Amino acid sequence: MSTERLIYLPLGGAGEIGMNAYVYGYGKPGKERLILVDLGVTFPDMDSSPGVDLIMPDIRWLKERADQLEGVFITHAHEDHIGAVAHLYRDLNVPIYARAFTANLARRKMDEAGLDSEEVKTVSAWPEVTKLGPFTVGVAPISHSIPESGGLVIDTPAGRIVHTGDFKTDPTPIVGEAFDPEMWAEIAKDGVKALVCDSTNVFSLHPGRSEVEVGPEITRLVGEAEGMVVATTFASNVARVKTLAEAGHAAGRSVVLLGRAMQRMVEAATETGVLKDFPKVVSVEAAQELPRENLMLVVTGSQGERRAASAQLARGKYRGVEVKEGDLFLFSSKTIPGNERGVIRIINQFSEKGVDVVDDSSGLYHVSGHANRPDLERMHDIIKPQMLIPMHGEHRHLRQHARLGEAKGIASVVAVNGMMMDLTGDAPKVVDYVDTGRTYLDGSVKYGALDGVVRDRIRMALNGHVVVTVILDEEDEPLGEPWCDIKGLAETGTSNAALVEVMEEDLNQFIMRAGAKTLRDDDKLEENLRRVARQSAQNEIGKKPEVTVVVSRMR
Amino acid sequence: MSTERLIYLPLGGAGEIGMNAYVYGYGKPGKERLILVDLGVTFPDMDSSPGVDLIMPDIRWLKERADQLEGVFITHAHEDHIGAVAHLYRDLNVPIYARAFTANLARRKMDEAGLDSEEVKTVSAWPEVTKLGPFTVGVAPISHSIPESGGLVIDTPAGRIVHTGDFKTDPTPIVGEAFDPEMWAEIAKDGVKALVCDSTNVFSLHPGRSEVEVGPEITRLVGEAEGMVVATTFASNVARVKTLAEAGHAAGRSVVLLGRAMQRMVEAATETGVLKDFPKVVSVEAAQELPRENLMLVVTGSQGERRAASAQLARGKYRGVEVKEGDLFLFSSKTIPGNERGVIRIINQFSEKGVDVVDDSSGLYHVSGHANRPDLERMHDIIKPQMLIPMHGEHRHLRQHARLGEAKGIASVVAVNGMMMDLTGDAPKVVDYVDTGRTYLDGSVKYGALDGVVRDRIRMALNGHVVVTVILDEEDEPLGEPWCDIKGLAETGTSNAALVEVMEEDLNQFIMRAGAKTLRDDDKLEENLRRVARQSAQNEIGKKPEVTVVVSRMR
Repeated sequence: MSTERLIYLPLGGAGEIGMNAYVYGYGKPGKERLILVDLGVTFPDMDSSPGVDLIMPDIRWLKERADQLEGVFITHAHEDHIGAVAHLYRDLNVPIYARAFTANLARRKMDEAGLDSEEVKTVSAWPEVTKLGPFTVGVAPISHSIPESGGLVIDTPAGRIVHTGDFKTDPTPIVGEAFDPEMWAEIAKDGVKALVCDSTNVFSLHPGRSEVEVGPEITRLVGEAEGMVVATTFASNVARVKTLAEAGHAAGRSVVLLGRAMQRMVEAATETGVLKDFPKVVSVEAAQELPRENLMLVVTGSQGERRAASAQLARGKYRGVEVKEGDLFLFSSKTIPGNERGVIRIINQFSEKGVDVVDDSSGLYHVSGHANRPDLERMHDIIKPQMLIPMHGEHRHLRQHARLGEAKGIASVVAVNGMMMDLTGDAPKVVDYVDTGRTYLDGSVKYGALDGVVRDRIRMALNGHVVVTVILDEEDEPLGEPWCDIKGLAETGTSNAALVEVMEEDLNQFIMRAGAKTLRDDDKLEENLRRVARQSAQNEIGKKPEVTVVVSRMR
Repeated sequence: MSTERLIYLPLGGAGEIGMNAYVYGYGKPGKERLILVDLGVTFPDMDSSPGVDLIMPDIRWLKERADQLEGVFITHAHEDHIGAVAHLYRDLNVPIYARAFTANLARRKMDEAGLDSEEVKTVSAWPEVTKLGPFTVGVAPISHSIPESGGLVIDTPAGRIVHTGDFKTDPTPIVGEAFDPEMWAEIAKDGVKALVCDSTNVFSLHPGRSEVEVGPEITRLVGEAEGMVVATTFASNVARVKTLAEAGHAAGRSVVLLGRAMQRMVEAATETGVLKDFPKVVSVEAAQELPRENLMLVVTGSQGERRAASAQLARGKYRGVEVKEGDLFLFSSKTIPGNERGVIRIINQFSEKGVDVVDDSSGLYHVSGHANRPDLERMHDIIKPQMLIPMHGEHRHLRQHARLGEAKGIASVVAVNGMMMDLTGDAPKVVDYVDTGRTYLDGSVKYGALDGVVRDRIRMALNGHVVVTVILDEEDEPLGEPWCDIKGLAETGTSNAALVEVMEEDLNQFIMRAGAKTLRDDDKLEENLRRVARQSAQNEIGKKPEVTVVVSRMR
C-alpha cells in the first residue's frame, strides 16, 4: 500500500488578489518533493502598509523545506507572479523555470539583485516538458494580458493537474498564442485530477472580449484627435502597447514610449521574438522637435502611481514633454480597486490643464485579461476535472467559483493561503494548516507584517508622537524639569497655551510628587510619564498620542 | 450709476465633491452683504489626512467679514452640506436657515456642541421666502436621496439666482416632494440670471432612475431569502430605509434598525412628519428572541466604515447579533470612490462566514441621488438661465458641465474654490482670488491642512522615527554616549546588528570627533546628529527616518 500523497498548498494568492505562490508536493507525508508555482508580490498602501516598498508571501514553510524543493515555475511575468523571484531567491536556491519572455524578465530581476541569472531556465512550450523529481511539468500556452502566459500541466503519480495561471479564452490576442481549446481538450482527454483555476473575473457574467476588439475604437479615437495624444496602459500588456502604437502610426503620428517599464517590456518582447512588426518609435528628445499634433505618447502609470509618467505629466513636465489644452489623454486600462483616488487625481489635473481624458466608460478602450464566468465554465467543460480548486481570488471569488464547480458535480473546495490539501483521493481534503502571512520589503530589509513595525507607523500617523525626556541624578532625583518634543500634533490646544508647555507642566507636577520607588524604577517611571503625557494631551487637544519616554540617569 | 455688484464665491465644494460652502454677496465692492449656502465636511483618509477626524472648508475669508454675513442656508442634511455647521458656528455667529427635517438635524448638532439650537430657524417651502439684507431667499423642494432637499431661489437687485443644491429629477421619490418641473418653470419664467447647478453625475449618460424603481427587486430578493437578511444603505436615505423595511415587512420579517445614524435619521424624519407609515420596528434585544429567518436588519456602514454596524457584523457580533451561513447581506448603496478597500474587506469577511453578499452589480438595488447628464440638460432647459455655474463636482465634472451649457449658448464658467465671480453683467467674470483650503478637526482642535501637522504624521508613517538623545555637561562635553530610540523601523539591519546599536556607534563616532564649536551650537549639533542618524539608517536598512534630536545641557 502506497502512503505517498499529492498535496497542494497556497502560500499566497488564495484569499487575495496578489503575491501568488502555490506549492505542489508528492511523496510520503512530510517528505514530499515540492515544486513552487509563481512567486509574486503585492503592492503596499497607506492604510495598511505605509512606507513599505513591496509585499511578498511569507515563505518560511518552504524555506525550512528548501531541500525538498525541486524548482520554481513562473506562469507569466506579471509582478504578482514574478515580482518576488529575486527578493526571495536566496531562501530557496533552486532553478526558476519559465518560457522565454518571462525568463528574460526574470533574468533582469536576478541581474539587478546581483544574483546568478543563469539560475533562470528557459523552457519551451507544451508538449515539451520538464521532469523534476516526481513531477513532469509542461507549460501550455494560454492567452492573457501579457505575452507567453502559460497554464501548467503537472503530471504526478497521482494524476494530472492543470494549473491555469492567469488566463482568458482569447482567440485573437494580437501578441502571443491564442487560446487553443483543442490543445486543452487533448491535454484533458485521459482525465485531469484537479483543475486549479484563476477566479479573478468570476463575478463578470458576460463572455470575455478579445484583445483585438479594442483596436478599431482606439484607432478611430486617435485618428480624430487634434492635439497630442497620450495613452496609458499596463506596460506588460504588450499587445495593447502595440495596438496603441499602431493607432498612432495609422494617424500619421510619431510614437514615443515613455516610462522605464514601457521601454523594458517592449525590449524584452522584441528580444525574445514575441513582439514583431512594432511600429517605429522616436526618442523623447526627437519628439520635442515635432509638432505636437503629430505625436502619440504611450506611457506608464495607468493606476495613478505618483512617480510614473502619467502622474508626472499630469503635474507638469516629464522628460521635457508637457501636455497642453486640446491634447487627449486615454486610459486604455481599468482602475484596480484601491487605486481610484490616484487615478481621479490625475484626471482632474489634466482637466485643469484643458486636456480631455477618455477612459473605458466612454468606449471600448480596454478589455480584461481574465476569463469571465462563462469562460471559466467553458474551461471546466473542456478540462472535465475530478476536482476544482479555485485560486487567484479573494475569498468571495474563490467561494463563488467553487459554487460553479459544485453545481456541475465537480468536487470543489475553497482553499485559502495556508490550507494544505491532500488531492490523492476522490475529493480534496484539508490535511494541515500552515502559518502563512506577508513579508514586507522596506528599504533594504525584510520583516513580517505582524512584527509591529508598521503598526507603530500607523499609530504615529493616527495619533502623532511625543518624546518625553527626563534626567535623574545619582540619587534618582530629577535634574531639571521633564521636557517634551512633539511631531504630528497641533502646537496649541484648547487652553490656548503651547501644547508642549502644558504637557511639561503636568509632567513636572507628577515628577515632583512621585515617590522614590517610582523614580528608581525605569519601567514604572516610563509608564507613569507616558500616562501623564497622554492624559495631558487628551485634555488639551482631545487625542492621546504615541509617547516615547527617554529617562537618562547620571549614574 | 450703481456700483453695486452681485458676487458668487465658492469656499468649498467647487473642484471637489465634499465640504460645500458657497457665498453670495450683493453691494458695493468689499462692502457686500453676504449669505452662505451650506457648510459641510469632507471625510479624511490615511493617504492625505491620517488621524484627522473631519475636514472642513477654511472660512477665514468669511470669518473676517462675519459682520457682513446675514445668515447661512442649508440646502439639505447630508454631511457634506451640514456637517460643519456646529464646528464653525462660533466663527460666524449668524442664524442658520433650513426646512424642518434639515433644521431638526442641525439643532441636534448644535445641542451636541453645547451651542444654542435656537439659532437654527425652520423655514417653510417656496413660495415662502426669507428676506435677509438685499437677498430674498426661498427654499424650493427638489428631489434628492434625503428628505426635504431644497433648491434655493435667491432674489437680488441684480436678478434671480437658482442654486439647485444636490438634486435629481425624481417624479416618485417615496419620501418627500417629487421633482416639480411646473414649479421650476414658474420660478424661471421671468428670467434667471444664474443657475448654480449640481454636477456630480454629469458623466452618467442615461436618464436617472427614480427611487421607486428599487422597490420591486428588493422586495423580491428579501422575499426569496431564507436566512436572516441584513441590508445597508446611507442612513440619510430615509426613502430607501423605508423601502428596505417594507420589503422585510412584506416578507413577514420583523424589522430592526441598527446603528446610531440609522436611528437618528428615522427619528428626525418621523418627528418632522416627513416620514409616515414606517413599518413597526423591534428592538435589537427583542430580535434575539426571534428566529433568524424572521428578521430583517437595516444597518449603517454601507461605505465599509470600520466602526459602523456592517463592519462590526462582518468581523463578529454587533449588539448581540451575529450573521451566520445562509444569511443574506445586501448593499443597497454604491461605493464612493476611495472606499472600495473597506467595502471589499467586508464582503470577503461575510464570504468567509458563508453569507451571500448582493450589491447593485447583480440587480437594481440602488439608484443615485444626483441628476444625470440628460436630467441636467432638462434642468438647463427649464430654468433657461443667462449663465450657468457648475458646482458640487471635481474639476472634471465642472468642466464637462460647463461644456454642456456652452453648447446651448449659455454663458458658462468653471469657478473653483476661491474664485470670486461677479455675476452683475451679462457673463460671469472673475474679480478676485481668495485664499481657501481645508481646516482639519483633530480631536478637539482645528488647524489648517498646510500647517505641517499632518505632513509630519505622513513622514513618520512612511519613514519611521528615531529619537536621538545627547547630554552635554557644563563644559559642552558629552556626558556618556548618544542613544537612540526607534519607532516604526526594523530592529535589525543588513549587518545583522541591532539598528539602534549601529546608529549609536555612528553617532558616538561623530560626537567624539566633533569640535567645540559644533558641540556648543544647538542648531549645528542637532543638524549633524540628524544627518548622521539618517545616513546610518540608510546604510543599515536602506531608508532615511524622521529624526527628533534631544540635546540636554547641564548648565
